[in-house]
Amino acid sequence: MEVANGKNNNTTMISVEIGMEVHKVEAPPQISSLRKLNTRLKETFFPDDPLRQFKGQSVKNKWILGAQYAFPILKWGPEYTLKSFKSDIVAGLTIASLAIPQGISYAKLANLPPIVGLYSSFVPPLIYAVLGSSRDLAVGPVSIASLVMGSMLRQQVNPVTDQVLFLQLAFTSTFFAGLFQASLGFLRLGFIIDFLSKATLIGFMAGAAIIVSLQQLKSLLGITHFTKKMGLVPVLSSVFRETDEWSWQTILMGFCFLVFLIVTRHISIKKPKLFWISAGAPLLSVILSTLFVFAFKAQNHGVSIIGNLEKGLNPPSWNMLQFHGSHLGLVMKTGLITGILSLTEGIAVGRTFAALKNYQVDGNKEMIAIGLMNVVGSSTSCYVTTGAFSRSAVNHNAGAKSAFSNIVMSVTVMVTLLFLMPLFRYTPNVVLGAIIVTAVIGLIDIPAAYQIWKIDKYDFIVMLCAFLGVILISVQDGLAIAVGISVLKVLLQITRPKIVMFGNIPGSDIFRNIHQYKEAVKIPGFLILSIEAPINFANITYLNDRISRWIEDCEEEDETQKHCELRFVILDLSAVSAIDTSGVSFFKDLRRVFDKKNLELVLVNPIGEVMEKLQRSDDTSDLMKPDTLFLTVGEAVTMLMSTMKHHV
Amino acid sequence: MEVANGKNNNTTMISVEIGMEVHKVEAPPQISSLRKLNTRLKETFFPDDPLRQFKGQSVKNKWILGAQYAFPILKWGPEYTLKSFKSDIVAGLTIASLAIPQGISYAKLANLPPIVGLYSSFVPPLIYAVLGSSRDLAVGPVSIASLVMGSMLRQQVNPVTDQVLFLQLAFTSTFFAGLFQASLGFLRLGFIIDFLSKATLIGFMAGAAIIVSLQQLKSLLGITHFTKKMGLVPVLSSVFRETDEWSWQTILMGFCFLVFLIVTRHISIKKPKLFWISAGAPLLSVILSTLFVFAFKAQNHGVSIIGNLEKGLNPPSWNMLQFHGSHLGLVMKTGLITGILSLTEGIAVGRTFAALKNYQVDGNKEMIAIGLMNVVGSSTSCYVTTGAFSRSAVNHNAGAKSAFSNIVMSVTVMVTLLFLMPLFRYTPNVVLGAIIVTAVIGLIDIPAAYQIWKIDKYDFIVMLCAFLGVILISVQDGLAIAVGISVLKVLLQITRPKIVMFGNIPGSDIFRNIHQYKEAVKIPGFLILSIEAPINFANITYLNDRISRWIEDCEEEDETQKHCELRFVILDLSAVSAIDTSGVSFFKDLRRVFDKKNLELVLVNPIGEVMEKLQRSDDTSDLMKPDTLFLTVGEAVTMLMSTMKHHV
Repeated sequence: MEVANGKNNNTTMISVEIGMEVHKVEAPPQISSLRKLNTRLKETFFPDDPLRQFKGQSVKNKWILGAQYAFPILKWGPEYTLKSFKSDIVAGLTIASLAIPQGISYAKLANLPPIVGLYSSFVPPLIYAVLGSSRDLAVGPVSIASLVMGSMLRQQVNPVTDQVLFLQLAFTSTFFAGLFQASLGFLRLGFIIDFLSKATLIGFMAGAAIIVSLQQLKSLLGITHFTKKMGLVPVLSSVFRETDEWSWQTILMGFCFLVFLIVTRHISIKKPKLFWISAGAPLLSVILSTLFVFAFKAQNHGVSIIGNLEKGLNPPSWNMLQFHGSHLGLVMKTGLITGILSLTEGIAVGRTFAALKNYQVDGNKEMIAIGLMNVVGSSTSCYVTTGAFSRSAVNHNAGAKSAFSNIVMSVTVMVTLLFLMPLFRYTPNVVLGAIIVTAVIGLIDIPAAYQIWKIDKYDFIVMLCAFLGVILISVQDGLAIAVGISVLKVLLQITRPKIVMFGNIPGSDIFRNIHQYKEAVKIPGFLILSIEAPINFANITYLNDRISRWIEDCEEEDETQKHCELRFVILDLSAVSAIDTSGVSFFKDLRRVFDKKNLELVLVNPIGEVMEKLQRSDDTSDLMKPDTLFLTVGEAVTMLMSTMKHHV
Repeated sequence: MEVANGKNNNTTMISVEIGMEVHKVEAPPQISSLRKLNTRLKETFFPDDPLRQFKGQSVKNKWILGAQYAFPILKWGPEYTLKSFKSDIVAGLTIASLAIPQGISYAKLANLPPIVGLYSSFVPPLIYAVLGSSRDLAVGPVSIASLVMGSMLRQQVNPVTDQVLFLQLAFTSTFFAGLFQASLGFLRLGFIIDFLSKATLIGFMAGAAIIVSLQQLKSLLGITHFTKKMGLVPVLSSVFRETDEWSWQTILMGFCFLVFLIVTRHISIKKPKLFWISAGAPLLSVILSTLFVFAFKAQNHGVSIIGNLEKGLNPPSWNMLQFHGSHLGLVMKTGLITGILSLTEGIAVGRTFAALKNYQVDGNKEMIAIGLMNVVGSSTSCYVTTGAFSRSAVNHNAGAKSAFSNIVMSVTVMVTLLFLMPLFRYTPNVVLGAIIVTAVIGLIDIPAAYQIWKIDKYDFIVMLCAFLGVILISVQDGLAIAVGISVLKVLLQITRPKIVMFGNIPGSDIFRNIHQYKEAVKIPGFLILSIEAPINFANITYLNDRISRWIEDCEEEDETQKHCELRFVILDLSAVSAIDTSGVSFFKDLRRVFDKKNLELVLVNPIGEVMEKLQRSDDTSDLMKPDTLFLTVGEAVTMLMSTMKHHV
């Protein structure tokens, strides 16, 4: 299409349409402030309208639906079939074979006794099976929350010398984590976890994976005197300072199992049908390595082993919760951070698999389920648990049909706790390290990082900050920095909103950004700007500066090119989604300044709220004169051009 | 106009336009990331393009312009006329008569020796006259910054027993305030003060006015044992506990002068031409009350007086600045808060009068001027100063033409400092209290508060929080709470963006919100939604929930009303000003979910950045198929309806 860029052409285009009807801008219907508040609160806290299904039901049905709402098991339980049962048995046994070695390993990551990891795979899955609404979530301890809890508590308490106190703090943190998670759900504040953006999480998880892997160098190299710090620098310097403690037997064994686990993991990634290879590999490694140590008495040759483990089910631990004393601040903070992190993982996993199978997961309800699970867990010797990604993927691939697979897993763990614990006595720590490393390597997502780099450079910076913050400063600071930068970006978008200049697309009454649409032409005498953000206290100064710069630019151009003089400044408000009192006075000031410059301010398409507030503040009807308020830019230009002609 | 609300009518309307041309959505031209970053940085830090005037000038001119840019006095100095000179002399003398009693009073408000208030009216105005770009700003100490500095420093140091230390901390705070202000200007971060919204400031100033007035009860009632706290409750209980200390002579005198000052103030408000009445009243009160005390020896009858004052100009005080020790944190915090507050007042005053006289004030340059003025002030025995609203209004009304009136005021204060100080010996404290109360009463702006209530209820809450926070908790906490709530509102707007349903305005191809435009009609088979916020990590979960609720609503309605089935979901992205990686994956997920429901996702008018990011992420060309991407909703509906017909 030829780019029409002359004055004559424009007036022709415009005059063709001069017969068109002009539409009035309307204010929205009057609604009381109370009803507006009500709507606003509903949109803020109940965007998914959870009570929708109760509408128009009988009282009895409402009770049934309510019970099913609170306990999803009542919904899928009655419809449960033998076929699903068989699938769930297989899936449950598969995830149990993964849960047992992972439980022991993650507990060690959190500086807790290995058996706590198994306790945590017994009680919480049972609770979740009753309360949870995801069909694929497999519940248990996860690497990142374990790492964060261990490292935060270790700042104040030594897990080796003060073992009981450390355990008390871990359970209390778990209690607070659960309380916090459940409160978020009850208060419908679940959107708080949305502030952990995808970019933040990718950077954070990659950093955490590296931190976790570095910690495993202790067991993989067989070092006994290891630093208590978590950062990249102190750990590496500690590793290379203690080279005389390296044990070749341990290193060899660790290397073999690490290769074995990574190879099996890759096979399962390549061929998802062979999921059971990577699912069974950890347990197989544990069994093989234990037999090996037992047969060759390797524990006497520098290979450290788990040692004696108690038999029996979870002992009660409510008497170990501590709600006073000098560590209260620490456990609350630890609970908050591990709570948010584990919640984020659990919700994300639930949503991912729900989308795959096309069913809905209610975020706030899930939070309550996960939260209650942790509150109960904290009084039955469990630490923080959530829906784990790797385990849920195995559960899904193994064909799980419902939360019943969690019950199967739980029963399997129970049997282990009751009868099989002595078998783990000779399990070498090095194989646990290898299991952890293999699990966390999957958290480093290079393709996703590349995709972010390709799409959005600022997001990439956020990701990088999270990553570097975690490996160089600390896990919680890295997270805080990344969230801070994400929020700063959003605030910056508000503080510096986009204003674009519109031009007419020839042969139509459409007006669009002249930088995006090269064929769009300016209309002489008009400056058409579109503001693309809410107008509020944070940006009126900028808007003022920017608009006067546009006008100066325009006037200079007029002078040099001898175009006709600038007469009208049209502000397209279609994209102004909200306005506050500062924004209202911005328009008043603008009108006053324009009057002095002999310019006419024309507003186009203010949306409901904006229209309403402008009207309410407009005692003198100065802003909302009908001849300076239009529904579309096209109509505004057409009308104003015709009045210009009449005046000339 | 008749509301057309049937299916037939719509299809008629649409078929009329079926011959229209369909316009292509274009991506913006390719720009390198570096150039984008450059543009972004320029918009963020140089929205006013301060270097514009240097473009295309000769080197010599550039030097001259540069010098004029740094020292505005070089710009207006050479053009200065005798007529302006006469006006400035009058204005300068007028504001000096206000500055002397106010200086003494505000210094007492900050728990500083009265003479520091006069020092602060001597040096800073001279600095501002050279560096400042406002023609109306009258510089000196102000009530709010004085109050905040006094109350914050008093938390840790007793101003009576530790007088020297208190003075050192005050000067050091002033230094930090100036440093902070100048840095904001140099780093072009001036937009930070924009976060103090109008609503926040109105509430804050009203609260501060009440706190200040309550403090004056000490001198107005003649109480000697007064509480050191600032809150409403402790002050009132202290006042009524010490009723035996009330002195009727003081109360009577205070009452007379208070009435006199308030009446003169009202006269000047009613008739701005009589500005000199309220401008001269404080000085007249000081003279009258001093003569009265001297004549009747009232100091022996329970009327407390200022006492002996030293003669002489500002002594240097750079040796009193303390950059170490236990109070460093306090002075930095005090400097930061008083710096922001005084900067906000100074900039707002400058902008107000610039708008009245239609000239420009460069915010960042003003910050540098005010900042340097305070840095110099801190080493010449001055405390925090800025452009004061009341004083600048008098300056403006008295006909000031340039910053030269500040020099006149400064010289007058100098003469006072050199020769007239002994005259203030018998000035009663009660008259200073009356002057302060009269000055701060003007800060309580009831009509503005009512206007805010009328326009925006949320802003009213922000205002109320600032007000109550200041009078019930503390000045700085009240401010922090209000800023926090303001930012929360902005974040909430992002987290819960508006989505509105569009309908067709009969007889046109315009689509608008069906709640705002009652005549707009839905098109059967189409769900047309407009998203009015950037799409990012903080809102994709909400958008997902909300869009699926719209679809469910629409499908239910289809069932009951037997309309034709929902086929197309059109998302109008005109108002989506930005998108991030989470937003991009939101669209991909949406397309996937829609595919399963047999719905077509159609995007309309994505703006430059959004278009670009969607394209870049769209390896499979799934999102950007030409038949699901349109420039206007009208064209999208027309085209899709015609394809529907062909298929049926």
